[in-house]
Amino acid sequence: MNGQEEGQTGFEIAVAIPKRTVKEQDASCDCIELLVSELRKMGLIVEFVVGLADEFIKLAAPLEILGKAAADLEIRKPTHIGMDLPFRWDEVEEFVRQPDGSLFSWAERFCCFQHLIYGIVNRTESIITLRFNDKEFQWKLGESLLTRLECEGIVKQLFPLHDESKRKHLLKHWALNWLDFTQQPIDEIYSYFGSKIATYFSFLGMYTQWMFFPAACGLTLQLIDFGSWQLWVLPVFFISIISWAVLLIQFWKRKNSALQFRWQMNHSMGDNVLNKGKSDLQSDVELMKKLGNDKRKQKEAFQRNEWFGHLLRFRNDAVIVLSIICLQLPFELAYAHIYQVLGSDVMKFALTAAYLFAIRCFTKIGGKVSVKLIKDENNKSTEIRADSLVYKVFGLYFMQSYIGLFYHALLLQNFMTLRQILIQRLIVSRVLQNLMENSIPYLKYSYKKCRAIYKKKHEKVSSTGKIQMTSRVEKEYLKPAYSASTGEEFEDGLFDDFLELALQFGMVMMFACAFPLAFSLTLLNNISVIRTDALKLLVMLRRPIPRATATIGAWLNIFQFLIAMSICTNCGLLMYLFDQEGKWRIEPGLAVILIMEHILLLIQFGFSHFVPEEPAWVKANRVKNATQAQDICSKQLLSNSGGEKKIE
Amino acid sequence: MNGQEEGQTGFEIAVAIPKRTVKEQDASCDCIELLVSELRKMGLIVEFVVGLADEFIKLAAPLEILGKAAADLEIRKPTHIGMDLPFRWDEVEEFVRQPDGSLFSWAERFCCFQHLIYGIVNRTESIITLRFNDKEFQWKLGESLLTRLECEGIVKQLFPLHDESKRKHLLKHWALNWLDFTQQPIDEIYSYFGSKIATYFSFLGMYTQWMFFPAACGLTLQLIDFGSWQLWVLPVFFISIISWAVLLIQFWKRKNSALQFRWQMNHSMGDNVLNKGKSDLQSDVELMKKLGNDKRKQKEAFQRNEWFGHLLRFRNDAVIVLSIICLQLPFELAYAHIYQVLGSDVMKFALTAAYLFAIRCFTKIGGKVSVKLIKDENNKSTEIRADSLVYKVFGLYFMQSYIGLFYHALLLQNFMTLRQILIQRLIVSRVLQNLMENSIPYLKYSYKKCRAIYKKKHEKVSSTGKIQMTSRVEKEYLKPAYSASTGEEFEDGLFDDFLELALQFGMVMMFACAFPLAFSLTLLNNISVIRTDALKLLVMLRRPIPRATATIGAWLNIFQFLIAMSICTNCGLLMYLFDQEGKWRIEPGLAVILIMEHILLLIQFGFSHFVPEEPAWVKANRVKNATQAQDICSKQLLSNSGGEKKIE
Repeated sequence: MNGQEEGQTGFEIAVAIPKRTVKEQDASCDCIELLVSELRKMGLIVEFVVGLADEFIKLAAPLEILGKAAADLEIRKPTHIGMDLPFRWDEVEEFVRQPDGSLFSWAERFCCFQHLIYGIVNRTESIITLRFNDKEFQWKLGESLLTRLECEGIVKQLFPLHDESKRKHLLKHWALNWLDFTQQPIDEIYSYFGSKIATYFSFLGMYTQWMFFPAACGLTLQLIDFGSWQLWVLPVFFISIISWAVLLIQFWKRKNSALQFRWQMNHSMGDNVLNKGKSDLQSDVELMKKLGNDKRKQKEAFQRNEWFGHLLRFRNDAVIVLSIICLQLPFELAYAHIYQVLGSDVMKFALTAAYLFAIRCFTKIGGKVSVKLIKDENNKSTEIRADSLVYKVFGLYFMQSYIGLFYHALLLQNFMTLRQILIQRLIVSRVLQNLMENSIPYLKYSYKKCRAIYKKKHEKVSSTGKIQMTSRVEKEYLKPAYSASTGEEFEDGLFDDFLELALQFGMVMMFACAFPLAFSLTLLNNISVIRTDALKLLVMLRRPIPRATATIGAWLNIFQFLIAMSICTNCGLLMYLFDQEGKWRIEPGLAVILIMEHILLLIQFGFSHFVPEEPAWVKANRVKNATQAQDICSKQLLSNSGGEKKIE
Repeated sequence: MNGQEEGQTGFEIAVAIPKRTVKEQDASCDCIELLVSELRKMGLIVEFVVGLADEFIKLAAPLEILGKAAADLEIRKPTHIGMDLPFRWDEVEEFVRQPDGSLFSWAERFCCFQHLIYGIVNRTESIITLRFNDKEFQWKLGESLLTRLECEGIVKQLFPLHDESKRKHLLKHWALNWLDFTQQPIDEIYSYFGSKIATYFSFLGMYTQWMFFPAACGLTLQLIDFGSWQLWVLPVFFISIISWAVLLIQFWKRKNSALQFRWQMNHSMGDNVLNKGKSDLQSDVELMKKLGNDKRKQKEAFQRNEWFGHLLRFRNDAVIVLSIICLQLPFELAYAHIYQVLGSDVMKFALTAAYLFAIRCFTKIGGKVSVKLIKDENNKSTEIRADSLVYKVFGLYFMQSYIGLFYHALLLQNFMTLRQILIQRLIVSRVLQNLMENSIPYLKYSYKKCRAIYKKKHEKVSSTGKIQMTSRVEKEYLKPAYSASTGEEFEDGLFDDFLELALQFGMVMMFACAFPLAFSLTLLNNISVIRTDALKLLVMLRRPIPRATATIGAWLNIFQFLIAMSICTNCGLLMYLFDQEGKWRIEPGLAVILIMEHILLLIQFGFSHFVPEEPAWVKANRVKNATQAQDICSKQLLSNSGGEKKIE
């Protein structure tokens, strides 16, 4: 079974199990045999692969089995009558298909697989005793077999598998297709990786495409000497850059809603319908039912809930913001200052090493504290939790990346150092990061592979000849997962990719007037990022777990915030650039008033986020109405509308 | 019939006709007799009133007749299953009732009445010749009788009638109930005047209620001498005022959505469903059908449409903005300057008179130009057109009201004059306006009444004794309508009421630091405005035609704009107030950069309005889907769900 060719499609999920040393005589007691037979009983297609260090169960499913799981989960899907209804297998013709012609999206398929696999429970009337390598344990009544096995450490991991033919196709037409520059087969990416990753690449492509304009402007500014007009060219450049950025974000929103429409993600009911089968919003509906029909009581309960949640979130944000300002800001400033003051290069090097170590600790701790705080908040869905994490952790990275730059630009007015740092960050650190991004997973993978082979050799001392890793599923298992640097919870590797993009955007935008050439460097960088990120996903990493949202979430607000920041910093830069004679002194009083003005403007646009426009009880009522209507519709319409197929 | 008591409820609509001098022998040829008999045939309850100068047809309708008209119009109403469906008379139990227990809201009833009255068409097979006072005209096939009569000048007006018992009730519990301060019976106002007017009063009440806080702050600031702390108190006051205003607007949005929920105004499908029976958004759907299933072609057509509309609106706005800046701004500045420079009081008086005359002309012309420009735009609904008008005309009034103040505050730094002007505008002009608002309608009404009585006397020279106006319907007919000062199109009297509120808000907010007492004056003023506006609507004016929206529309954005403006102006004021020693000089270069920064911030927040987030074709598709689904539901659900009544 080991050397078998695995070019077969359909095997999308694998379960990793440690190698069994003792073969059970009684197959009914062996938990793995039981698992396999239960999976087969469900209708899944099971293939058993024995690897060098582990064993693997590869799973595929006929469409019908998945459809029934989807019906169990009551996954809402768009129908031809234009309404999202819970899926029903007997009315399969009524449901709109994916752009590539398949019935379920990858995220939906994964969800169904999970439901099926975790759905194996002890339905007998007694506790079953199972054995694995001499270990014995109890499978209780009504307990999920997989959860039990995970607890016992027998099932190491459940992970999605790459589809070889599609992967090769994408590799050829996307990752290695350097001539296309910013063009990408977004629909194919969507059907292979799910909507969240496709949205990232779509954004990256659009951003890079739009980058041609400021890159051309920046290059012109750098190459041509405008003589006496020089003083006027810079503000014009500044204004056009800001307008460009604002339009980019606005047109991205349009493009995003077009994408959501194409991928049939309905944005009215919340995006978490898939993750939990039934929407979390329905908890509101249940709360309403519990409270009975007393509208007044309902309203009060909802308002209490709503404001308590706000207060909690406000407290958490305050904790994060205060700790960033009180702990991180002085630290970063101290580093920048000491670095500036120090004379010897050796000392500088030592300082930087210490600093790099310290910020690594800082980021780790910050990430952990954030995750802990977020768990307190009663956020409605996992995506909102992820957004909450992004905001909190971005604060950390923001300080870490920009404080040094601010120090040089605004406090010391040392533009040469500023430009040096910018070049260094944009080129050197980028090359380093690219190398790291692609080499570390490879090294990790190689190390794991070697260890497995070594172990094997060690065991079979007698057998001579080369031991090779021949099963593809084991290779994939040894590849690193697509996970975030801050931790596995709430976010996956997209966090790092977006973070890189946002930090780069902020760096380039905020100091645009000091270093217009940065846009050209960024353009070149981004063109390569598209391909290297694609390669990373297709070759270096395990296939990521699909996420069912089609927005860039919190990052949109972060980009908008960076634009607003860059308006202010560039104004400051221009002021200093023009103030060659030291004439335009800003008196402290004036400065205070200007700062106050900006804080107030911030308050005005910030408060509208803090106080939601629609009270929670109104929203709950609306959702309740919509859910009720849809429930009734799903019962009655589908059975009747068979005759009115595909009304378009 | 003349002296008959009209305390009867149900007569909600009246048609005014000139008095007939010649009685027709052949009743079938007399157009009025025909109209009355046709109305009776429809099932309406008709009462004929002969007044002094005119004759009136008063109309009432049994609920069933209105219900059938509503079904004809396919008015969408919320049902107990939580979905808005076109009304059907045979399923009346399925539809949710109004908060006051009636089936239709006043706006819906008015809409049905209109549909019924204008629905009288020539259904015979030949052209009918009609006569009125010797005049003869043709009633063509399929033509609406009322439209024909309106063209011939025979039907002077179709207007809603006051309901005496409800009017007296509201008069007692609302308009004359001064002890309630800001409390108002909003639901009763809604069921009597419709949602738009009720929203206005709800906003006014909330605004006045919230005003207590800044009024208390301002009074404290005025009365207590803080000594050396004086310099610090003003910025604190400023910050708290701005936060107050931002919170006011944000909480108003919440309250507004609660109101919309209570009044069952669905905000997803556009508010114009009522006005036209079928939503204008459906024109999109029809366009889609016409273009066929070629998604690409559809998308392109929609995008062309969308951007063309934007371009048109942009051109119009540019015309308005440019003409305001190039024509009005110099004029206003010139007036403020000449007034300042002139020595003699007589000259000042003459100048002001000439100025007042000129701005009256300006406003008229501006209003007309705006209306003309708006007619070019292909706005989707009448409410969007009204909003467009509000934006354009508000620009005019903004310049007119504030340029003088800016001149004194920012250019001359003459705070005494500024305060004088503020007091004068807030008290004197307010009293004058209140007087005007209440006396002019009364004078108009009295004049019309006298003329009617005089005419009557003149005719019947023989009859002696006092001639009195005894029919209430004639009295109401003579009362002025609730119309806007800028013209009858798109907006009614609410325009003036909101304009007054917005100008006052801007005046008080923008110069808050120069004159904190203004808030207290405004509070007193607003408490009286609630009652005088109520009195005006209940006593002075004809009952207004109901409008079916429950938002304050464009005024919300105007209030937000005024808050942003007031942040900037107050910063300027504070700068000048603190700059007693003339130390904080702003260099021209610095000033230019600061102005640029503010313009860019404006661009950032303005562009998001200019480029809609959702492309038109996505929206059209979404609406098409929703409409389709609802259509299918309305066909199938209502007939089936009879057994599941009132699922709540």
